[in-house]
Amino acid sequence: MPKERLYLFDTTLRDGAQTNGVDFALDDKIEVARLLDALGIDYVEGGYPGANPTDTAFFAENRTDKATFTAFGMTKRAGVSLSNDPGLRDLLDSQSDAICFVAKTWDYHVKLALGISEDENIESIGDSVTAAREAGKEVLLDCEHFFDGYKANPDHALACAKAAYDAGARWIVLCDTNGGTLPDEVEAIVSEVAQTIPGDHLGIHAHNDTEQAVANSLAAVRAGARQVQGTLNGIGERCGNANLTSLIPTLMLKPAYADRFAIGVDAEGLAGLSKLAHRFDELVNRSPNRQAPYVGSSAFTTKAGIHASAIAKDPRTYEHVDPAAVGNRRQVLVSDQAGKANLVAELERMGIAVARGDGRLESLLREVKHRESVGYAYEAAGASFELLARRTFGVVPDYFDVESFHISVERRHNALGQLVTVSEAVVKLTVGNERLLTVAEGNGPVNALDRALRKDLGVYRDAIADLELIDYKVRILNGGTGAVTRVLIESADASGNSWFTVGVSENIVDASFEALNDSIIYKLLKAGVAAAG
Amino acid sequence: MPKERLYLFDTTLRDGAQTNGVDFALDDKIEVARLLDALGIDYVEGGYPGANPTDTAFFAENRTDKATFTAFGMTKRAGVSLSNDPGLRDLLDSQSDAICFVAKTWDYHVKLALGISEDENIESIGDSVTAAREAGKEVLLDCEHFFDGYKANPDHALACAKAAYDAGARWIVLCDTNGGTLPDEVEAIVSEVAQTIPGDHLGIHAHNDTEQAVANSLAAVRAGARQVQGTLNGIGERCGNANLTSLIPTLMLKPAYADRFAIGVDAEGLAGLSKLAHRFDELVNRSPNRQAPYVGSSAFTTKAGIHASAIAKDPRTYEHVDPAAVGNRRQVLVSDQAGKANLVAELERMGIAVARGDGRLESLLREVKHRESVGYAYEAAGASFELLARRTFGVVPDYFDVESFHISVERRHNALGQLVTVSEAVVKLTVGNERLLTVAEGNGPVNALDRALRKDLGVYRDAIADLELIDYKVRILNGGTGAVTRVLIESADASGNSWFTVGVSENIVDASFEALNDSIIYKLLKAGVAAAG
Repeated sequence: MPKERLYLFDTTLRDGAQTNGVDFALDDKIEVARLLDALGIDYVEGGYPGANPTDTAFFAENRTDKATFTAFGMTKRAGVSLSNDPGLRDLLDSQSDAICFVAKTWDYHVKLALGISEDENIESIGDSVTAAREAGKEVLLDCEHFFDGYKANPDHALACAKAAYDAGARWIVLCDTNGGTLPDEVEAIVSEVAQTIPGDHLGIHAHNDTEQAVANSLAAVRAGARQVQGTLNGIGERCGNANLTSLIPTLMLKPAYADRFAIGVDAEGLAGLSKLAHRFDELVNRSPNRQAPYVGSSAFTTKAGIHASAIAKDPRTYEHVDPAAVGNRRQVLVSDQAGKANLVAELERMGIAVARGDGRLESLLREVKHRESVGYAYEAAGASFELLARRTFGVVPDYFDVESFHISVERRHNALGQLVTVSEAVVKLTVGNERLLTVAEGNGPVNALDRALRKDLGVYRDAIADLELIDYKVRILNGGTGAVTRVLIESADASGNSWFTVGVSENIVDASFEALNDSIIYKLLKAGVAAAG
Repeated sequence: MPKERLYLFDTTLRDGAQTNGVDFALDDKIEVARLLDALGIDYVEGGYPGANPTDTAFFAENRTDKATFTAFGMTKRAGVSLSNDPGLRDLLDSQSDAICFVAKTWDYHVKLALGISEDENIESIGDSVTAAREAGKEVLLDCEHFFDGYKANPDHALACAKAAYDAGARWIVLCDTNGGTLPDEVEAIVSEVAQTIPGDHLGIHAHNDTEQAVANSLAAVRAGARQVQGTLNGIGERCGNANLTSLIPTLMLKPAYADRFAIGVDAEGLAGLSKLAHRFDELVNRSPNRQAPYVGSSAFTTKAGIHASAIAKDPRTYEHVDPAAVGNRRQVLVSDQAGKANLVAELERMGIAVARGDGRLESLLREVKHRESVGYAYEAAGASFELLARRTFGVVPDYFDVESFHISVERRHNALGQLVTVSEAVVKLTVGNERLLTVAEGNGPVNALDRALRKDLGVYRDAIADLELIDYKVRILNGGTGAVTRVLIESADASGNSWFTVGVSENIVDASFEALNDSIIYKLLKAGVAAAG
């Protein structure tokens, strides 16, 4: 049976721009449009030409090759002639392939917000679609509040949709603008609407206010809709829009959809999805959601011992899809709950082959459990775990020995009467036979210590030249007897690799020192540096 | 019509502990159980007694008042007598009210992971349930991989469920362990199972791997299941578990569920949900998800101009539920007016009456915006915000003035050759006309500073005698030009009150000092102490 075509419409650059904290510059918009076009999205909605300088500049050129480049805007104002509506003019004049009009379809809003009659509303919709068709544009109508409107007054909501369809709109998009509609309601209402307007002209635009935007989108598809609107990583106003990054893999990998529908994304595009999701987060400067379905760094990560042994036997037993299909990877974390199977799998990944019966496994496991009970968190600090494991198997060189350090932090008024704080660290260490003394200032005690420690590591100087501290997190843990401080450090180097180390102590400086130390040793080890001697 | 009872089962402390990056200490577990119990959750699953020292200690006492305190563990191993299974013994001996057993119900797993026959698996389930019933426990069975198992071999999956039910298990929980099952499949399969086991004995345990854990949970309820399992803020292995923080408001506020079902949470509990969600994030040291449905700070935040004017006319037109019902609040980002209204409401809550036209409102708003842009987080630090507000209105006394401080941290070998670290702080300050010099040692630089600062505050000595630092959190923020450190401190006193203060600086010691300072001043202010002088 030939598959039915299902169309994807991306509104990252329009509804996604409503996200609290997201603000696209022109270059960002160009880059996002390029990513979406390359992925195989059918429609890229770019914003409102005429509404602000960025969007106007963005629509001065057509920004997509394959995708239908779409401008968003309101229908003609009622009681105003076409030529007297500058907003509509901007839409018609922009370099878009299509126009997506938004119109109110809830009678209450028509009265409250527009103050016009239902007939005037319907007329304005029809006129706007006709004008855009005459300007050579493909036309879509976003029916604002369609589901709430349909529940309140189905006749008016349907009449709005039908006016656009009859005037030649390619798509009638049913919007759950407030995001409060539930999947079974969506499925029932879309089924009813599909008796008036053919499903292959119906779209769904869902919001995540009950955490069901993805389910609502799929419910509409089951009921006949053939266009799905959403955003990258589910950004959008309030709780966000339907997450295309979750929907695309489900549509392509779950037989219930994959066997029935074809979309514009191919297997190669799908395999690049995790990378694209992270690239997009970088672009909008958000921390990636580790738990994001399919593309999150934890999406295929197992911590439980009881699961890990089955995963080792057959990964598919605990994975609903193959992580490689979406460009992600499997990970088994070592933790408090780790069983031996976890540990062996993790050691193998590091290139340490150990027999299940090796007694050192037991002692490593005991050590991990003990350390985690006093505050270490190895699942979050893979590099420190690797050092611990390699030490157990005797393969970490003694690179250097820190004999002592002294840190001083002083806050006082300077000569100008301003309060200043100066932090200084002195470190004494030996590298092979060489004794080194370094001193450095920093933004704080840990920063000063880090600088002093790395300022002169003798023969290792070049090997650690590109090491950089990129994140530092501190947590106070209340253990049984007293509080301890846990420090987690993320480091990176010029190759783009990053690694995490951990330190635990009653003293924040000691905990930081331990994590810093681990970071440097890990870097030297990975660089294949031998110990000076 | 009387409402049917729907039960909520929380697995934050068990499945939630599988979250990458989450690691509960004993105190955390106690606090979370307390929060869940107070909220009105029916079952609190606390972990695996016997599996690790934390969980064993947690189950040494019963930790809930109203909720059924539940231990999790595996069914008896096949071919081993009850008395020879130490895991089962730990479960039976723990101070829990109920035991939730997990058993494999997918025939492939029974063979692959357990290597036993289907009959042996069924027998082991029945025996375990019977043993727990005889020990006086309420019993639940988590049917691992139920949906995949049912698709592969419905007879075996059902036989496992039925064996537990027949042996007296109160609940048979259908688990979508891999998280890949879709809502319509869940609805169909639960409907079928409900023909064998009554729906008021069926539970649903969904994972979020296709971003549909909430939809899957509700689909199961529609099909007859009357227990829903989930976690706070949707934490959990891989992509997380069904999010109770989203499910609870939907069950209580959406007529399709609220009119049919009663749950253990009341309107007051619901109104505390946003606060509870943030408290939990703090506890596990995660940044709150601003876009979280219902409880996220952006969940009722509008940026769009076209929406904002309608909101001003009637907020309900753009809100699917009333934000106050879940303890959240409306925010309109475009208008400073709205910001001002928020601020006035906030000040009123503190007992500061200000007219809308007061010019100081504008300057406080500007100051808050500026400070938040450089890293302060006043939502998390109410005491610091209150001080900032009260200072704007001129009502915070100058209690003391810290002239300078000097901190020294030294790590060296002591006379016995052991590495020791000594932290010492000297503080010079004036209280009224009195100049004070104090010195103190501490576990680290901040602890030493805190001790020195509070060691002798002259006339305020008694007023701050019961002040205690109970939590200290540090985060590095990457602003535009460079990294700054944000310190959040939680303090408490003998009355049981606790308050949060914040400090931001390039230097962690300065940031800590600022937060400590605020904490002391807040305490003096609340105690009604007048400035010396």
